[in-house]
Amino acid sequence: MSAVPTPSSQPEIPALPAPAELPRGADATGERLLQAAHELLYERGGGPVAISEVCARAYANVAMVKYCFGNKDGLLLALSMRITGSFRADFERLAAQELPWREKLERHIAGIVWNYLRYPYINRLLADQLRDADEPGTRALSESFAAPLGAFHRQLLAEAREAGEVRDVDPVLFFFSVVGMCEFIFSARGWLVHGFAQALDDDFVDRYVEHVVRLVLAGIKRGGREASVVRSARQRRHR
Amino acid sequence: MSAVPTPSSQPEIPALPAPAELPRGADATGERLLQAAHELLYERGGGPVAISEVCARAYANVAMVKYCFGNKDGLLLALSMRITGSFRADFERLAAQELPWREKLERHIAGIVWNYLRYPYINRLLADQLRDADEPGTRALSESFAAPLGAFHRQLLAEAREAGEVRDVDPVLFFFSVVGMCEFIFSARGWLVHGFAQALDDDFVDRYVEHVVRLVLAGIKRGGREASVVRSARQRRHR
Repeated sequence: MSAVPTPSSQPEIPALPAPAELPRGADATGERLLQAAHELLYERGGGPVAISEVCARAYANVAMVKYCFGNKDGLLLALSMRITGSFRADFERLAAQELPWREKLERHIAGIVWNYLRYPYINRLLADQLRDADEPGTRALSESFAAPLGAFHRQLLAEAREAGEVRDVDPVLFFFSVVGMCEFIFSARGWLVHGFAQALDDDFVDRYVEHVVRLVLAGIKRGGREASVVRSARQRRHR
Repeated sequence: MSAVPTPSSQPEIPALPAPAELPRGADATGERLLQAAHELLYERGGGPVAISEVCARAYANVAMVKYCFGNKDGLLLALSMRITGSFRADFERLAAQELPWREKLERHIAGIVWNYLRYPYINRLLADQLRDADEPGTRALSESFAAPLGAFHRQLLAEAREAGEVRDVDPVLFFFSVVGMCEFIFSARGWLVHGFAQALDDDFVDRYVEHVVRLVLAGIKRGGREASVVRSARQRRHR
């Protein structure tokens, strides 16, 4: 997609008029298709979107989907990778900063929540893609997001542990609990609105971020007082 | 659906042979349709399921869907209500027990996780239903689960607060953070398997429950040491 096609090299692709403010040629069409898919998924909370609707919104011929992305799955994979790539850039920038682990963790939690606010459908999209993808597809998705984010969490927890400030926490369990908290207000938005009559507005998101930060910081803090009362989940299950 | 139809009262519904171990008549068919929808959603992680597939698996004529549930949406709503009803029965039973709040909370967290393990697709199904439902539909769904669970959390936190053991925690924020943690290993199962090469087996679930219980208990514990370092999320966002 980096080269703008010419009629001679790609005669089967119809030329589409590109809006003035976007890059020219196929790249511009590809961008419009990505933006259109994003908008439709956003509007439907990740619900089903037909490729014909994406094309109609992007003012694009369906053949451009094939040219730019191979097929609908390729378009949605490119959309996912674009989004997870921006998430990754955020935490990699943060990881490189000279900041105490606690400050990094606070900013990171706020960053995840605000990213999900912009792309509330991303988790469902990724779940579908991981379920249906072949081996290279799942590897690409994992390498674009889960693996590096897991590594970032492992590093943060190691720094905190070295500083003697937190107890021993499994980074994989940490990953799922922290990301799960950040994501749930979006995937369960219906509960918020209908079950609690609470809009998912900026004020609520701010309060939620503060709650999660506080819960996590206190939750991983060193101090044995809690350990004795936490029974094994297995014991609990078999009671 | 409580009455078994007779050929004279419902001549348009073909009689289907009911397996010996199930209730007879339309109720048995309704049960098989619910079970079939459950199995297909389970197998596909909440992915799309056609009503013809449900009928084929249930050995049921598609007209039985109309008779028992009105339509596919009605069948899926009945499935959701059945599941959320069992979730609600669990925490209502727990709420009625003479146990310290901490024990109730531990058992409750384990209960949510093990319930999601049995119905990992329920959250996506509910999200779709809440998005698409009319006013009575959203009210029924909210009353079957979110509202009473929110009330249970409010009560638990009030008991803990009266015992002087936890800080002031907003029950709505608490609901989304706790349920979100419990649910995410299922909705993001793909990350677990592909990003971390970790199977979602009983051992992992046990460890995860223990992690969440510990994080929550320590996270809401009374003690002001954390408060000073938690900056306002709004300040953080506008930095």
